[in-house]
Amino acid sequence: RLGFTLSSFHCLQDEPATLDDILISCRATLKYAIKTAHPRYFNQLSTGLDMVGLAADWLTSTANTNMFTYEVAPVFVLLEYVTLKKMREIIGWPDGRGDGIFSPGGAISNMYAMLLARFKMFPEVKEKGMSSVPRLVAFTSEHSHFSIKKGAAALGIGTESVICIKADQSILVALVQGFVPFFVSATAGTTVYGAFDPLIAISDICKKYNIWMHVDGAWGGSLLMSRRHRWKLDGVERANSVTWNPHKMMSVPLQCSALLVREEGLMQNCNQMHACYLFQQDKHYDLSYDTGDKALQCGRHVDIFKLWLMWRAKGTIGFEAQIDKCLELSEYLYNKIKDREGYEMVFDGKPQHTNVCFWYLPPGIRYMEDKEERKKHLHKVAPVIKARMMEYGTTMVSYQPQGDKVNFFRMVISNPAATFEDIDFLIEEIERLGQDL
Amino acid sequence: RLGFTLSSFHCLQDEPATLDDILISCRATLKYAIKTAHPRYFNQLSTGLDMVGLAADWLTSTANTNMFTYEVAPVFVLLEYVTLKKMREIIGWPDGRGDGIFSPGGAISNMYAMLLARFKMFPEVKEKGMSSVPRLVAFTSEHSHFSIKKGAAALGIGTESVICIKADQSILVALVQGFVPFFVSATAGTTVYGAFDPLIAISDICKKYNIWMHVDGAWGGSLLMSRRHRWKLDGVERANSVTWNPHKMMSVPLQCSALLVREEGLMQNCNQMHACYLFQQDKHYDLSYDTGDKALQCGRHVDIFKLWLMWRAKGTIGFEAQIDKCLELSEYLYNKIKDREGYEMVFDGKPQHTNVCFWYLPPGIRYMEDKEERKKHLHKVAPVIKARMMEYGTTMVSYQPQGDKVNFFRMVISNPAATFEDIDFLIEEIERLGQDL
Repeated sequence: RLGFTLSSFHCLQDEPATLDDILISCRATLKYAIKTAHPRYFNQLSTGLDMVGLAADWLTSTANTNMFTYEVAPVFVLLEYVTLKKMREIIGWPDGRGDGIFSPGGAISNMYAMLLARFKMFPEVKEKGMSSVPRLVAFTSEHSHFSIKKGAAALGIGTESVICIKADQSILVALVQGFVPFFVSATAGTTVYGAFDPLIAISDICKKYNIWMHVDGAWGGSLLMSRRHRWKLDGVERANSVTWNPHKMMSVPLQCSALLVREEGLMQNCNQMHACYLFQQDKHYDLSYDTGDKALQCGRHVDIFKLWLMWRAKGTIGFEAQIDKCLELSEYLYNKIKDREGYEMVFDGKPQHTNVCFWYLPPGIRYMEDKEERKKHLHKVAPVIKARMMEYGTTMVSYQPQGDKVNFFRMVISNPAATFEDIDFLIEEIERLGQDL
Repeated sequence: RLGFTLSSFHCLQDEPATLDDILISCRATLKYAIKTAHPRYFNQLSTGLDMVGLAADWLTSTANTNMFTYEVAPVFVLLEYVTLKKMREIIGWPDGRGDGIFSPGGAISNMYAMLLARFKMFPEVKEKGMSSVPRLVAFTSEHSHFSIKKGAAALGIGTESVICIKADQSILVALVQGFVPFFVSATAGTTVYGAFDPLIAISDICKKYNIWMHVDGAWGGSLLMSRRHRWKLDGVERANSVTWNPHKMMSVPLQCSALLVREEGLMQNCNQMHACYLFQQDKHYDLSYDTGDKALQCGRHVDIFKLWLMWRAKGTIGFEAQIDKCLELSEYLYNKIKDREGYEMVFDGKPQHTNVCFWYLPPGIRYMEDKEERKKHLHKVAPVIKARMMEYGTTMVSYQPQGDKVNFFRMVISNPAATFEDIDFLIEEIERLGQDL
């Protein structure tokens, strides 16, 4: 329940609080927290709470160190090395060669990819800025994540230079207009629909025009671990860079996002500033383990240990099993509602990921003749049902409008603790809370 | 000891490991971890391990949520709001008004500041990119952190457009050359020397030329909490933005970095992309609590709770006491070595922060006549002593060259668990490990 207000807590004071007060604060914080680990919490792409992952995060907090040098994080730096290599092997790059880093979230990973693509084509941009390069243009899929545009705005490329691509026509048009296409971001698992771009076709286009191919697999990348579903990313091995967030479909505690890069050395060249107080050249170990100069960050939180320990504890087959299970649950949901009275699917066909997008039509508007009137009513249904879900505290699902489509529910499943019964419950709960609307 | 190698661990396998193996991995990870909480670990600006901070971090991991919306992190969003307001009050902005965010480290906070400054002067840059604006130039202090240049490279401004400022002459020269000065980053506590730029004088210059004034107080900002030392930041209230990392001098577990901004609404305007799947406009609560669109990140780790809970547990006076104590310890070190045989100070006068920079000259080179020969030898001393410290596992101090100065030790103290005895120990240990060099 959202009964929480600021006044429940004392503000920050000059004097210390008592231990009792501190414990009360902790209890209240947990009480009013959203229970993201609950099997009926379907609200975001990151859900669940893996016990090994949690233990690993606690150990990480206790070690309280910084990824920027091997000197102060020898174990974590090596585990990051091992894990990134394994992820590159799974992508399909020969011998797992390449580079990579764990960054604070998929948006930053995507921005890094764009930064690398620009630097690869125009290395002088680092010193001389955008005034030294021609007008650049980036392409991304129609339903790509907003971080591609955010990145373009930050990097001084501008959101107008990000074109939502439908075919290679757009690239030709850009070339004719004198722009330089430098970056294509294909999406493997869009945020709302869970759709996968055709990576092989896109890679052919990128090859033809010599453009950096990035795959934003923040959400869908984990399907690479499933023998049943990895075909959806066929062609990913042709990418120059891949974003893959284990904190989503692999249920690793937030934050855990990897950027994988095919070319070795590029990250270092792109971002290094040789700070001599950190990256001394006369240290008594192999300096290639000092990863700090690959990043825009200076200090960098240890995000690797929870993923590494979970991987040890489950094995690759354990991740595969939990991913397959979530996809099975979403197929169960899809089959259950696709012909059920009162439901309409937002897009045709079986979902490619665990995203199931649908409208629930309460009986009162189910047979309305006036299409516009019906649409207007329908738009208000999901927000009210969602608000009621939160007031009862029974479940949480996201909703949104998209283009000309009015508010619809976007179900996603990434918590392996969810069961068929939870899916049944969700449907009943939507109908219970929405029947009077 | 650095006896750790990759072979100590199994690599990632298809099959799960046993619980015993998992526990062995955890033990080995802690065994070979650098003990950053040890009172004789002086290697970085972030040290120590506060028990309340650790407990808060464990609770944060358990809650496993995301700062992007109030919907999924109601308590943490409100605590961030309260804490940022308190920090702005301490800076001295009227009624603590303004804006801010916790970001993944000081480098990102500084980059945000530069991004805001550019957007403030040229809002069209967001859509149209750098090709729509004149050649920009930024100014920063001579010994500023490398993140200012990294930020400029990433944002498409270019490192050559970052000028290390000595006086307002440089601004005049830039203006004459047709550049547009848009950003001045003053440093409150430089990384190596711990020096504070004269903020009042710099703010006068910024006002005169209408330039955004940023204060990089990642390291020195915490001195604002000390009645004895806050005069070193006099003028900070005139800044447009301030970076302040509680994970450094306030010993909050990593990561915890705040960017404070004087103007309200600017962060939102600069970075928002209106993702309708996250920031639905028909939610049943005050949408201003959805902070996600202020950031470049989409998902954002909860960094606030550990700071807020420590503040509750210590009170402002508790932070003040631990900061004052660290500065007292560094003064003790300075007084002890400034005239001691075998030591030379790198810069004149009492340190302004806890940074004490010095050379240790082993007896063998102490009286060398040939200045160049002496310098050559001296350059090798600190790396060898440091390597020996790490082999014995007794203490850790950073060293580096700077400009024409050969390798020197940079002592910093940010762990309130350190004592006068630890300082005494450090001096004896340096002499023990270095006397034969």
